[in-house]
Formats: sequence, C-alpha cells, structure tokens
Amino acid sequence: MTYPDLRYILSLNSGSSSLKISLYSQHRNELGSVSEPVSLVLTSSISNISAPPAQFSFKLANPTDDSSNNSKSDASDAITDHESAFRHFLEILESQASIDRKHITYICHRVVHGGNYNQSIIINDKTYHHIEKLSDLAPLHNGAALSVIKACISALPEAKSVAYFDTTFHSTIPLHIASCAIDQDIAKKRGLKKYGFHGLSYSFILRAVSRFLNKPPVDLNLILLHLGSGASACVVKNGKSYDTSMGLTPLNGLPGATRSGSIDPSLIFHYTNKAGRITHDPSMATNVQVTTAEDILNRKSGWKAITGTTDFGVITAHAELDDPDPEIAARNPNRLAFDLFVDRIMLYIGGYHLKLGGNVDALVFAGGIGERGTELRSVLSERVACLGYCKIDDDRNKNAVKGDAIVVDISAEEKAPRHIKGKRILVCKTDEQIEMARQCALDQRFWEKKN
Amino acid sequence: MTYPDLRYILSLNSGSSSLKISLYSQHRNELGSVSEPVSLVLTSSISNISAPPAQFSFKLANPTDDSSNNSKSDASDAITDHESAFRHFLEILESQASIDRKHITYICHRVVHGGNYNQSIIINDKTYHHIEKLSDLAPLHNGAALSVIKACISALPEAKSVAYFDTTFHSTIPLHIASCAIDQDIAKKRGLKKYGFHGLSYSFILRAVSRFLNKPPVDLNLILLHLGSGASACVVKNGKSYDTSMGLTPLNGLPGATRSGSIDPSLIFHYTNKAGRITHDPSMATNVQVTTAEDILNRKSGWKAITGTTDFGVITAHAELDDPDPEIAARNPNRLAFDLFVDRIMLYIGGYHLKLGGNVDALVFAGGIGERGTELRSVLSERVACLGYCKIDDDRNKNAVKGDAIVVDISAEEKAPRHIKGKRILVCKTDEQIEMARQCALDQRFWEKKN
Repeated sequence: MTYPDLRYILSLNSGSSSLKISLYSQHRNELGSVSEPVSLVLTSSISNISAPPAQFSFKLANPTDDSSNNSKSDASDAITDHESAFRHFLEILESQASIDRKHITYICHRVVHGGNYNQSIIINDKTYHHIEKLSDLAPLHNGAALSVIKACISALPEAKSVAYFDTTFHSTIPLHIASCAIDQDIAKKRGLKKYGFHGLSYSFILRAVSRFLNKPPVDLNLILLHLGSGASACVVKNGKSYDTSMGLTPLNGLPGATRSGSIDPSLIFHYTNKAGRITHDPSMATNVQVTTAEDILNRKSGWKAITGTTDFGVITAHAELDDPDPEIAARNPNRLAFDLFVDRIMLYIGGYHLKLGGNVDALVFAGGIGERGTELRSVLSERVACLGYCKIDDDRNKNAVKGDAIVVDISAEEKAPRHIKGKRILVCKTDEQIEMARQCALDQRFWEKKN
Repeated sequence: MTYPDLRYILSLNSGSSSLKISLYSQHRNELGSVSEPVSLVLTSSISNISAPPAQFSFKLANPTDDSSNNSKSDASDAITDHESAFRHFLEILESQASIDRKHITYICHRVVHGGNYNQSIIINDKTYHHIEKLSDLAPLHNGAALSVIKACISALPEAKSVAYFDTTFHSTIPLHIASCAIDQDIAKKRGLKKYGFHGLSYSFILRAVSRFLNKPPVDLNLILLHLGSGASACVVKNGKSYDTSMGLTPLNGLPGATRSGSIDPSLIFHYTNKAGRITHDPSMATNVQVTTAEDILNRKSGWKAITGTTDFGVITAHAELDDPDPEIAARNPNRLAFDLFVDRIMLYIGGYHLKLGGNVDALVFAGGIGERGTELRSVLSERVACLGYCKIDDDRNKNAVKGDAIVVDISAEEKAPRHIKGKRILVCKTDEQIEMARQCALDQRFWEKKN
C-alpha cells in the first residue's frame, strides 16, 4: 500500500444553521507521530444557512504573499442548505487555494449522538442508517451532520467519511452513574442512559492539559467545564470520563443559551398546558408533543429566555456584579441569569470534587464562555478556593486567551512547584476540529492495517 | 380569652394510602414554652387504605396499668378511604383512650405543596380552595390531605384545622437558586420554580441539631439528608434553607422507592413512545399524557424499578457491598440501586459543601433509610472524609437509633471539642408530627392575639 506524498483531512462541524470546516495536511512521514500528526491548512465557516443569505468565510492558516487569496468573506445566495454550503466550499477551495479535492482522503464529521458506538466509525450504508436512527435521541443535533455526510459522499466519492461522536469520550462512565432509576428493561431496550456530550472537546482538553502539566492522562484527575451556548461539566478520573452533566441528550445539566438544563422532570407538563391549570383526569389531560416540549426546552429556554440575549458577554456586562444586594436578581434579569449559571456550575464542581475524593489536578475552563468569561472565572475561582484551589492572578485571567498558547494557567502561584501547591485553574482553547483530524490520522494506522 | 385546662393538638400526616395520627396534650402553663410546648399522648396509624382491608393501629405513649387498652392493632373493613379512616380513629379514641374529641382544639395537617404560602395557614373556604388548586403541582401528594381536611371539618367542627406545608421551610431559598432557566413570564404566572419538600422534617432536624450542638440555628451550616421512600437533600445556611434537591414537585433530585429523581428532562418522551422509535414529525408524534408521565416517573421508577423491592434494607442486604468488582452492578441490580443512590447523594453533598464555602457544622442523616441505613452511612462517611468530616465510630453507627436520643453523633471523635475537630456526622430521628404540633402551640400565641 502506498501513500500519496500529500494528503488532506477535512474536519466538518455542523450546527443547525452553520458549518465549520477545517482542512489539515497529513504528510506521509508524519503518520503515526503522536505529538502533531496533522497541520492546519485553512478554515472556512458558513453561518445563517437557515436564514439566508448565508455568510461564507475562508481563511488560509499560513497566508502567502499574494494576499488577495488568503481570505474571503461574503454573503452567498448559492447557499441554501448544508449540502450547497459544502459544495460552495469545495469550489472556493479549488479556485482560491488551488487544492485539488482529490487529495482529500478522509473527511471527519462531528456527530453529536453516537448511541452505543464507543469509537469513531467509517460511514457506509449500514452505519449511516444506524446514525440516522440515533438522531431520535438528538433530534436537534444529528440532523445537520447527516445531510453534510450525504453531500460529502456525493461530492467526494473517493474520500472516506468518518463519524466522530461527542458521546464516545463518555463511554467509560460507570454503569451506576450512567443509569437512571427507571425500569431497566425499557432502559436497555431504548438505550435510555447518560451518554454525555462535548466529548471531542473534552478529549482535546485532556490531551492538551496532560501535555501542559507534563503528566500522562492516566494520572490525571480533572474537572472540565465546556461552557458555550451549550454548556456541560465533566469529571475525568485517571484520564477517563467518570461523569458528565449532560445526559440522554444535551438538554440535561447546565443551562445554555436557549436550553433549560436540568429542571424538575414534571415541569414541562405544567409549562405547556394551555388551560392554565392542569387537570389530572386522563380524559381531560392536555397532551404535550415530543416536538413541542423538546423545542421549548432546547430552543426557547436558557439565558435567552431570562434576559433576551444569547450572548453571555452582554449578560455579564449588565449583571451589576459589583452590587452585593441579595435582592438584585429580582430586578436585574442579567444578574439572575449570571447567578443562576454560577449556582448550577457550583453543584457540579462540588459534586465532582467529592467524586474524585478531593484529589483534583486542575479545574479547566473551555468553550466560548469558558475562554472569554473573565468575570465568570473570577467569581467561580473565589468560590472554589475553599476546596484547595489556587487563587487566580487577575492579569493572567484577563489575558488568558490573548496569546497563542492552547492552555494557560491563570493560578496566581504558577511558579511554585505544581504538585505541592493548590489545585490549578486553567483555561484551554479547545478545538474539536483538530481533535477529529488528529484522531483520524492515528485511526488510519488501524484501518489501513485491516485492509 | 380563657384556655381549658387541658387541650389537645392532633397532627395528621396523610400518604396516598396511609394516615398517621399523633395526639399531643398542651397544658395551659406550657403555652409559650419553647423547649417542649406539647407532649405526646398517643399515636395511631392506618395503612393499606386503598388496598383493603386497611390496617389500623393505636398506641398510648404512656401506658396505664390496664394494659388491654394501651394498644390496639387490627384490620378494619369499616375503613374504605381517608375520611372513614379518620372517623374510625375518633371512635377508638373515645372508646379506648376515653378522650373527648371536643378537647381537640387544633388539627395540624401536613400538606406537601404549599405553593407560595410561606407560613402555616388556618383553613377556611378560601384557603381550602387555594390549597386545592396547588394540588396541580403535587397531584400525587396533596389529594389525600385534602380529603382528610374535609373529614376533620365535618367531624370536629369546633376545632381549627391548620395546614402545615412541606414547602414553607424552603421559602428562604434565594431567587437565583429557586429559578429555572425558562421563560420568566410563564414561570411567574404558573409558579414554576423550586419549592422543595420535606420541610417539616428539616425544620425539626434543624431545631434538634441546634439543641444538640448547643449552637443557635442562625450560626448553623448543615447538610441534611432526609432519606426515605421519598429522599431529598437540603443545605441550611445560617439556619435557613439555601437549596434543596426536590423542585417544583417532589419528583426532582434524588431517586426514591418508586420515584426516578432527576433525569434528562426529555427522557420521558423516549420512555413512553409506543412506536419504539420516536418520530419528530408533529403529526406523527406520540402524545404523553400528564397523568401517564407523572405516574411512570413517580410510581413506577426508583429502586423498585431496578430491584423489584421498595425496601432499601433488602436492597442493601443483597448488594454484595464487600465485592470490589467494578462490574458487579451489571449483574446485581441491588448493587446497581445502592451505588446509584450513593452516587446521586454525593453530587448533592459535594455541591452543597461548596455552596457553604466548606463551612459546614454537620452532615445529618434522617428518614427511614437515613436512620436505619447503617451501611449507607458507612459508605458515605468514607467518601466525605476528604471534605474534612470525622471518621465514624462503627459501634455508634450501628446503634445510632436504638436509644431514646433524638440526635446521635456517630463521629469517632465525639469526645474532642466539637469546634476544633472535623465536621460531625449525625443521625436524627425526625418527627414531622411533633414538629407541626410544636409549631401549632407557638403559632397559637399569634393567632389568639389577633382575635
């Protein structure tokens, strides 16, 4: 078997109305290199797909002298769905970056729900249909990825499409933690358990933190917070996911931009009843449709429902964090949303700290809010000091993501030996796309050995 | 206004198929005594009300020499519902204990859901109907209490019926902790927030622990676990409820005998869909009725659904707790239920510990399982040692509820000064009935001043 001298791996990350694309090069002699098996060539991003005109952008990682081709950003009428978005990208790829699509050998797709798949999977007819079935469990999430997978198979028939699941990282969660206290026969039959999500991000973070702390994953106990428009917490014990806040679907756990997070399981019935008063006479009961209920809790809740904005930065700016009045949340919805988020995060940090027996190497912030939420980190750091965490350094906290570093230690006592001082507080620029490409480069050894 | 020399307070605690009754005497000169304003005269208990024949028992607190009248226990065909159960009790009260029902001046009713009532309430037409409306939020809980209230008003028209709510204790929970990340207009209109339950029990425990530790409630920070067929956790900060695991209804939080506890809010839709696969086409969506969903999650889940028994003692006995095999939960459902319960409790202990900034006076076990669950306490105590709790003394743990003491310190270092050693681990024999009667005796000052 021979390799072409240059081959590319494409990483695709589909949101409900967006598509993020990264192209990586993988040189023959780099195959198998654990440290950096791939290097970024370019990124592209398409947004507003479901609210045209779609916004398209394209950027080379290492600009050439001919600057006109280095980046491109425009609105495109040609993009009407995920499939046309991907085709538009391929055209630009050839016209702008002069890259022949035939050199793309692998395409990595981020698929939110992987059900019981505990590893990435090469997509063929059988696996495609299985993934399609799993979208029952993540109706708002798997759909877009599936349409992009179809578009890839049609546009790049020679490349292998591979599904990377957000659930895979959590397949190590012990049975008693992943199980619900419900009928076990039904639970098994229907796959009703905690799957957990954000797994590609957590996998990246674990690897990055391991390198940063110079400790192998197997020796690491971490509390990871991926805080973005979707937010979750994860506890890593000896390098493996031990628990996480999301559940059967990404709805469970922390609130998000438009997601309620954990609520009393019976709340939705009291929310959606149209009569204003619920009757418990079965013949009179108002029915709640799956679609309606999931839509309300996934798309019409969260801090958007409290404040009117999905932007946590705006919420933070208006939260009057300096005002110590305990009643402030009653008159300032931004403060309510901020304090509520802090409160829910505390439950998981505290709970996970105990599950690790207090033996924690670091608390790690990641995701859009995790990276940019200086005030959130500041508030949480003060609260966790009682558990033995380092105080944070205000300057380091403010500048956490300004440089090129993937992981930044914002603890105030960074220069002291790490193992004898308090538990570290880190910020990590997580990157799901490179995580897929990197795993793909490593997975190839296995796949190509099998053939 | 004059008091009769002897008057009685009746405390009624209605379950869906049971009625627990305690009669207390309140002497004139004891009115206002904070320490013990009431003393127990007799207890009665009726079970299997909805699965006749009902079991009736009756027991004097201070037996007389004529032993035949001191206690009574039989099956009664005359009892068909809560109303007839109460009437049967009144007959026995007169025939067996020679107590004239006219001397009963107050009847305390435990009502699970009090909505926004933040204190006990004397029942009249208006308040009765308000409580009736609240039963929408606790359909499986308020109903029985309401029928007993009706029976009392009819059988004892001269006595005042007072509703004591399990939610009242939690009215101090801050807004950002009690709020959900959902549409706030709808939340306010429909009262969708965390109410919390087991409040009469927590109120009793707080008072008892305050006396035991010789520290006023306002100086106490406690983590309280009321673990019974319904189980919850509560964090008390400066003598006030600051958070609790139950929510809008008692369904949220810890699993119970037949209750799921917290699950992914969307799980129920995937549980009850009859097609075996959920469609997200609205026209095809299977509807889930309020009654069906609440019934499954409240009555057909919990450790009964995992193990087949509601008896946590049986589960513990068969859990093979000495077997360290991490896979054991996969083959032993009792171990699965036990480990799952421990895991969920840990989330709250750890989370609440952090919410208190680590400044905790004691962890308190109460409720049927809290009192009798020697092994559960033993396992949890080991796990919380990392947070600065005392090790427990095995003998004290085993004999925790054998004596007459209301509160027992099972920590191994009991003899050391309490304030400099580790955080205490206590067991408390909680008593919702005497809590109501005691509050009633104190409330009378206020009510009778108003008249």
